Amino acid sequence: MKIALAQLNYHIGNFESNTFKIIASIERAKKAGADIVLFAELAISGYPPRDFLEFDDFVEQCRISIEKIAQACVGIAAVVGGPIRNKSGVGKPLFNAAWFLAEGKIQKTIHKTLLPTYDIFDEYRYFEPNNQFDIIEYKDQRIALTICEDLWNINDDNPMYQINPMDELVKLKPDLVLNIAASPFHYEQTKIRQEILQQNAKIYKLPLYYVNHVGAQTELLFDGGSMAINARGEIVAEMDYFQEDFALIDHNEVNKLPSVVLKKHSKIQLIHDALVMGVRNYFQKLGFKKAILGLSGGIDSAVTLVIAAEALGAENVHSLLLPSQYSSDHSIKDAEDLAKNLKTGYDIVPIKGLFDKYTESLKPFFKDLPFNIAEENLQARTRGVLLMAFSNKFGYILLNTSNKSEAAVGYGTLYGDMNGGLSVLGDVYKTDVFELARYINREQEIIPWNTITKPPSAELRPDQKDSDSLPDYEILDAILFQYIEKRKGPKEIMAMGYDKATVLRVLKMVNTNEHKRYQTPPILRVSSKAFGMGRRVPIVAKYLS
Amino acid sequence: MKIALAQLNYHIGNFESNTFKIIASIERAKKAGADIVLFAELAISGYPPRDFLEFDDFVEQCRISIEKIAQACVGIAAVVGGPIRNKSGVGKPLFNAAWFLAEGKIQKTIHKTLLPTYDIFDEYRYFEPNNQFDIIEYKDQRIALTICEDLWNINDDNPMYQINPMDELVKLKPDLVLNIAASPFHYEQTKIRQEILQQNAKIYKLPLYYVNHVGAQTELLFDGGSMAINARGEIVAEMDYFQEDFALIDHNEVNKLPSVVLKKHSKIQLIHDALVMGVRNYFQKLGFKKAILGLSGGIDSAVTLVIAAEALGAENVHSLLLPSQYSSDHSIKDAEDLAKNLKTGYDIVPIKGLFDKYTESLKPFFKDLPFNIAEENLQARTRGVLLMAFSNKFGYILLNTSNKSEAAVGYGTLYGDMNGGLSVLGDVYKTDVFELARYINREQEIIPWNTITKPPSAELRPDQKDSDSLPDYEILDAILFQYIEKRKGPKEIMAMGYDKATVLRVLKMVNTNEHKRYQTPPILRVSSKAFGMGRRVPIVAKYLS
Repeated sequence: MKIALAQLNYHIGNFESNTFKIIASIERAKKAGADIVLFAELAISGYPPRDFLEFDDFVEQCRISIEKIAQACVGIAAVVGGPIRNKSGVGKPLFNAAWFLAEGKIQKTIHKTLLPTYDIFDEYRYFEPNNQFDIIEYKDQRIALTICEDLWNINDDNPMYQINPMDELVKLKPDLVLNIAASPFHYEQTKIRQEILQQNAKIYKLPLYYVNHVGAQTELLFDGGSMAINARGEIVAEMDYFQEDFALIDHNEVNKLPSVVLKKHSKIQLIHDALVMGVRNYFQKLGFKKAILGLSGGIDSAVTLVIAAEALGAENVHSLLLPSQYSSDHSIKDAEDLAKNLKTGYDIVPIKGLFDKYTESLKPFFKDLPFNIAEENLQARTRGVLLMAFSNKFGYILLNTSNKSEAAVGYGTLYGDMNGGLSVLGDVYKTDVFELARYINREQEIIPWNTITKPPSAELRPDQKDSDSLPDYEILDAILFQYIEKRKGPKEIMAMGYDKATVLRVLKMVNTNEHKRYQTPPILRVSSKAFGMGRRVPIVAKYLS
Repeated sequence: MKIALAQLNYHIGNFESNTFKIIASIERAKKAGADIVLFAELAISGYPPRDFLEFDDFVEQCRISIEKIAQACVGIAAVVGGPIRNKSGVGKPLFNAAWFLAEGKIQKTIHKTLLPTYDIFDEYRYFEPNNQFDIIEYKDQRIALTICEDLWNINDDNPMYQINPMDELVKLKPDLVLNIAASPFHYEQTKIRQEILQQNAKIYKLPLYYVNHVGAQTELLFDGGSMAINARGEIVAEMDYFQEDFALIDHNEVNKLPSVVLKKHSKIQLIHDALVMGVRNYFQKLGFKKAILGLSGGIDSAVTLVIAAEALGAENVHSLLLPSQYSSDHSIKDAEDLAKNLKTGYDIVPIKGLFDKYTESLKPFFKDLPFNIAEENLQARTRGVLLMAFSNKFGYILLNTSNKSEAAVGYGTLYGDMNGGLSVLGDVYKTDVFELARYINREQEIIPWNTITKPPSAELRPDQKDSDSLPDYEILDAILFQYIEKRKGPKEIMAMGYDKATVLRVLKMVNTNEHKRYQTPPILRVSSKAFGMGRRVPIVAKYLS
């Protein structure tokens, strides 16, 4: 039996395009001599379809599309992920199903047992868990068909679940395991995923074929990395990362195939590639072409610009330089140098005149009150208004340039530099933004070294430095990582040796700035805990605040 | 046995204040001669604590607080809601528990069985469902202690669940049922809740004592309405709505008590009272006093201002009138009349000079391109910047004045009139905003009648009317209600008699504006489906769009 793996980039709710892509891959697999071709979890709808699943019309569109696809399965079988109605009358209205299609018809559906409901996952919101186990018989092979999380309770060491589906399925004596998945990227996930799947193959002594999504769904990035594993737990085929791919494996030979040399990626390279895909897919799937951003001469907007130019083409990215009376000369020069290095267009729109006009309009009310956060934010907001004016006039999408450290502590202006359709770096700590800049410059100076080496500053008042208001980024980021990614409390973080006052101050800044993060753009997720859909914290609360 | 019900307004994560309030009510109940006093679900943490539950420190603070409260339970028992660790090693790390406290100690905990995971609820994200049923014996009474949703599968007619906890508990022959709840308000919920609880009492022929939360937790509004029901299913005590309350019921006499006459509230009165509480609690719990908003002369900002003045006191609410060259004379007059009627402060800050300065700054780039959405939004954003400048300078919190119809179809400017810390009317359709205005004017003209009767307009270009871009609000709101609250698809809505082109256009406007709603302030929830935490829709998608 020959098994094809089709690693595709789906568009949520775009039944026409998803169906077309799937049928094209079925044709390709057939021509290549495959007996069966696998597509990802909820491929037909795109993942995650979220509350669209609550619309009968949406679920019906999924079913109609699957029927169309079934008709293409002549001389070949296919497994396609999609929702199916739970007709039992008890439990949630849907199952998360793998549809087994062959001989031009829907043959059977297998339902997901373990429904992730944590972090970015909400599956129990929509789906009833499966509790009946069955095998697919096809071409003299007994197939254990599983869906993503179903393989993630290996050795019963995932405390979240009471059941291990594979322990049930092995009782039915399968010859191989298929897993269709929607496993989103974060920079440590690739390795974790490979190890879990290898363990499954090894423990059950069965070859395993795994197909993941690839592509960005707003903030969620899917890296692909689909694979085939032999019964000894060795990865014998590893598919591409961050792009569509297709593979054909001879199942009869799979246990004779040797381990492949796995693709190696550094953390920073993974983050870089994920962000480029994230920006590219956001624009492609929304039908936009052109991006704009405010280029300050600082490192965040510099890295954002490079990523955007790579994702969209330099000709599709425009910058505005928006100097105020507090901008340093080197900021303008650094920004111009970068735009020239990249060959991206830019305009300079000084904001001093507008700032003065605002202070004049406000003078009757503000009188002689001292310059403070109001005037600082005025500058950031004036920039925001100008960027949005360009966006509205010329059809650019504004990219947000805030980093995760700033977003965490609320060091940014709502309706000012926090504007944008998409946040590119909002899940990248400042220290990693520096690493990204160095990675970008690994072969030549693209980002001016001065941008990388000068002390970070918002330049909203004379001689301002980030370090006036914030701990050093090395310390800040380390504390934030423990609190946000590792969910450690104040005592645990202090026990790691961090200064008590600093820890309490940082945690308080995080918790009192939920209101700001609530209104930020979607953030491309590259870590195991990003601000956004995977982190749900009350705004009005009094905890560590 | 005498049973006290303490209906309190908790503050999420504020263990000091929650513990203090609970102990004070225990003392009060004791003085009143109660044998037991009931507090709401997750009272100790406030509801919903959301991802705070993922922090060991937070769960530990809950336990420590409950132990303190237990010590106050001498000569009286108490039931307090709070999380408890699941020590079994399998399943989610916590249970959602009712702690039974007596004789100065924790006596027992009962765990929630049915975990709502839909709309605004995420309980399976944190909690393992209970599957062991037990009774509390106290003062010769056998108590079936249940938590909120546990009573919501009466007659097994809730298709979401496989089990009905009361069917298990009655096997243990209880004498009465207690239910501690966190049942958020929407304008139809009070009635639904009373009916469900009455059915429980009637079917199991047991008296039922029910304690709900009261107060606002950011967007979620809890209306209280705690109650006692006799074994015939008659409500014999109905507690206050939208404020704290305390009741004492003689359980020995409960079946002799007659039905009370239930408090009657119209839909609009309920929405009004809920919004006032929502604004008031948002400010109180964040420690703010003063609100600001942009007063346009239109109906949305007028109603918002009245609600804010009622919630915070007229002296704490300030308006800015921000006329442009496109503002009509009556707009300024209507706005001033309202502010004078309410005795709220206001300032007039014309924006024409600033608008001209922007167009001058943009002229080298925009050249002779025609006036379009860019210039319209410029006005809205200039107003947004001025309001935020006042907010930053004087410590006002900006209230957002957008209504649900606008939010649904994206008729509003991001970083302009969509700004604010809290959206007061974002879950109220335009047609209901008119009803609210008439309700406010029921005894005298507070909102100028001209504001209510003139055709709605954004006044961002000459002679603009909402009806230039949108269907009539009666039709628009009816279609939106079917799509958003009722989750009907296009075919179902057309089958109700709405014009096909209008239906498709409205649904497309909703689905292509998720990106705008993603960045709006939290919206006070008064309907069964509000924009915000209870409605989760992909931004990048292609469905009905």
